[in-house]
Amino acid sequence: MTLKERTAEAKRAGQITATLDEKIRNRALEAMARELTDNIPLILDHNQRDLDNARKDGLGQALLKRLALTEEKIREMARGVESVAALPDPLGRRSLHRELDEGLELERISVPIGLVGVIFESRPDALVQIASLCVKSGNALILKGGKEALNSNRILHELLYRGMLKVSERFEHSLMLVETREEIGELLALDEYIDLMIPRGSNALVRYIMDNTQIPVMGHADGICHAYLDKYAEPEKSLPLIRDSKCQYPAVCNAIETLLIHRDRVDMLPRIQEILQDVELRGDETVRHHISCTAAADEDWDTEYNDLILSVKVVDTMEEAIGHINRHGSGHTDLILTEKEHRAARFQAHVDSASVMWNCSTRFADGFRYGFGAEVGISTGKIHARGPVGLEGLTIYKYRLKGNGHLVADYAEGRKSFTHKDL
Amino acid sequence: MTLKERTAEAKRAGQITATLDEKIRNRALEAMARELTDNIPLILDHNQRDLDNARKDGLGQALLKRLALTEEKIREMARGVESVAALPDPLGRRSLHRELDEGLELERISVPIGLVGVIFESRPDALVQIASLCVKSGNALILKGGKEALNSNRILHELLYRGMLKVSERFEHSLMLVETREEIGELLALDEYIDLMIPRGSNALVRYIMDNTQIPVMGHADGICHAYLDKYAEPEKSLPLIRDSKCQYPAVCNAIETLLIHRDRVDMLPRIQEILQDVELRGDETVRHHISCTAAADEDWDTEYNDLILSVKVVDTMEEAIGHINRHGSGHTDLILTEKEHRAARFQAHVDSASVMWNCSTRFADGFRYGFGAEVGISTGKIHARGPVGLEGLTIYKYRLKGNGHLVADYAEGRKSFTHKDL
Repeated sequence: MTLKERTAEAKRAGQITATLDEKIRNRALEAMARELTDNIPLILDHNQRDLDNARKDGLGQALLKRLALTEEKIREMARGVESVAALPDPLGRRSLHRELDEGLELERISVPIGLVGVIFESRPDALVQIASLCVKSGNALILKGGKEALNSNRILHELLYRGMLKVSERFEHSLMLVETREEIGELLALDEYIDLMIPRGSNALVRYIMDNTQIPVMGHADGICHAYLDKYAEPEKSLPLIRDSKCQYPAVCNAIETLLIHRDRVDMLPRIQEILQDVELRGDETVRHHISCTAAADEDWDTEYNDLILSVKVVDTMEEAIGHINRHGSGHTDLILTEKEHRAARFQAHVDSASVMWNCSTRFADGFRYGFGAEVGISTGKIHARGPVGLEGLTIYKYRLKGNGHLVADYAEGRKSFTHKDL
Repeated sequence: MTLKERTAEAKRAGQITATLDEKIRNRALEAMARELTDNIPLILDHNQRDLDNARKDGLGQALLKRLALTEEKIREMARGVESVAALPDPLGRRSLHRELDEGLELERISVPIGLVGVIFESRPDALVQIASLCVKSGNALILKGGKEALNSNRILHELLYRGMLKVSERFEHSLMLVETREEIGELLALDEYIDLMIPRGSNALVRYIMDNTQIPVMGHADGICHAYLDKYAEPEKSLPLIRDSKCQYPAVCNAIETLLIHRDRVDMLPRIQEILQDVELRGDETVRHHISCTAAADEDWDTEYNDLILSVKVVDTMEEAIGHINRHGSGHTDLILTEKEHRAARFQAHVDSASVMWNCSTRFADGFRYGFGAEVGISTGKIHARGPVGLEGLTIYKYRLKGNGHLVADYAEGRKSFTHKDL
């Protein structure tokens, strides 16, 4: 079978999984978790082959660490799958119930999107996480992992799929693994079948996918986040927040890359430098007038360092800060530090980002911290889902209209009229 | 200024209109309506130029009719704008309010998408309708109309924009008109600035736009809708519904193109032919065994006639009908005719379409009939908005998080834990 035929089959499989009971979907998740814990040596064995190949290919330590599985990591994956089973059902939720006329009743009900494609790099646990989210939300899934994790992905896919099928054969073809690099291009062209593409990996991977498919893509290529230290900021509160937003985990998308300082707070620069001793500061001219640091170049305002580097700029007004953020930011997460509520409200209204924080760390922008139980990813798009995306982001809705012989001609020709009464 | 620069300006304008009060947006709509009714002769004069050119170019009668404005049509447009002003505010709605921990409060608030692009053909009233929906929802808008309506679009744009600016100069640059055909290609490449593209026009136009841009597109290229006459259908109820779904307005997307008949109901074929006397039936072999009609070819099952033509097929089971619809349909609107509730429920669950009807006409699938007050369009996509799309479809949300010095390090290192309490 060609990839196109297999994808068409996965699409049809999604139309079946869409109709499965919550109980069956949850039992499948429990069976998937069991397959993982029952086959730890087998998984470790496959993972070892990947590690051996990776060492031969000279993969860096950081990547090796992401690739390596342990018994504890596998048990944790299994617990993750079980915790998805425990989440509330995202399907069958009614978001509208309206009488259009006597006996003519409209409902809007949440349903799965259909067939989701996920292209991910190295981490094999991403496969398990995304598969469990798709089973929970009734979607079919096509996965393409990185070649470094070929054997790990293959065994994880096999076990998860086997677990699902043990519960019901109606999961057939709903979890598909694609292995070769050439197939990525083919997949990206199958917009006829794939309803949503989720890239998980480097900015370069995400950008590549966004630029090369007609399939809607959910994700973010950049995370250029800002903190703005307002004229009315409280120093003792603000300093730890700046540090937390930059340093708590600098390699991730919701860490800040730029600090904007109101001109009346430049006196805080030496203390900022002190709490960020391990961070390379790149300042504009005014900043360098107050502390000694590297000079920021134009491209610094558009750079995601993902590292212990922070660009720092002095602004004359909050409006200037907002303008800078809306121009240079990536609409991900931005923060205002101020004690004035009306200024915070203005900032939160005018900054055009998915998450706008007031006096708390940008690092809170995350599905688990927001209480979604699971995270599909973070989206900087402005369509469908924005910011941290939970299970809801894997659903859409359908309208069901029930009548008793109701004709449009009667309404068009004025014999009847609509009541439009919410029920 | 280049088109790119103008578009960047419109994008920034959208960040301003996003923050405007409901009152100002509604006053702008009222001012826009007034400009229309105050300038009827001027509009008619411009429209006449388009009509003269169109006649010179030999435009068909149907297109001329769509292009022609009258005093009454202009007054109706103005009333349409006023009725949008009267709709509930789609912005500032809170869809989530959660305490993450003491003093750390999360809100999810509806906001405009940003900058919307609309490419439309002939009908100048589309310009007025979509502009009013965008003003109401705080979005900036770039419009590209058909060249037949160049003069009409120009004056309508000028009047609407003038009306907005009379209310507040903060609407500056938020309504932009693009006039040349070459600029369509340029617009489609500006995914950096345009957040959503809405094509309104022929299937060919919609398909072209979907295939040639990275910007998310909302709309539908095809409307291949089905009625399925079940074994348990009630003939006296079903016959008028088949006629209404096909004939009430055959040129539109929610009219049916195919009728599927359960084998046990082939006895109804002569009566179906009778009520559809003015319709060309194209039947499969079984159908032609019972009535005399044209033979359906393979491509008939994938054809949107938009005309008084109906393909008819006999199926052995409801499952076969569902399979046919999910394979050949466009996910727009489909109908089951049956008296059995459990069969209707099964059909409505398994048919993967935006609107699934039971014993009522497919023609009800429409924003006004669904009670949305205004319609942006009908979407057959499965991301963001599906089916008839109202003002809600022009909004997305942002997260606002308010804290009091809350650091992620405290949670990551176990000193604090989340409460995740909905408020």
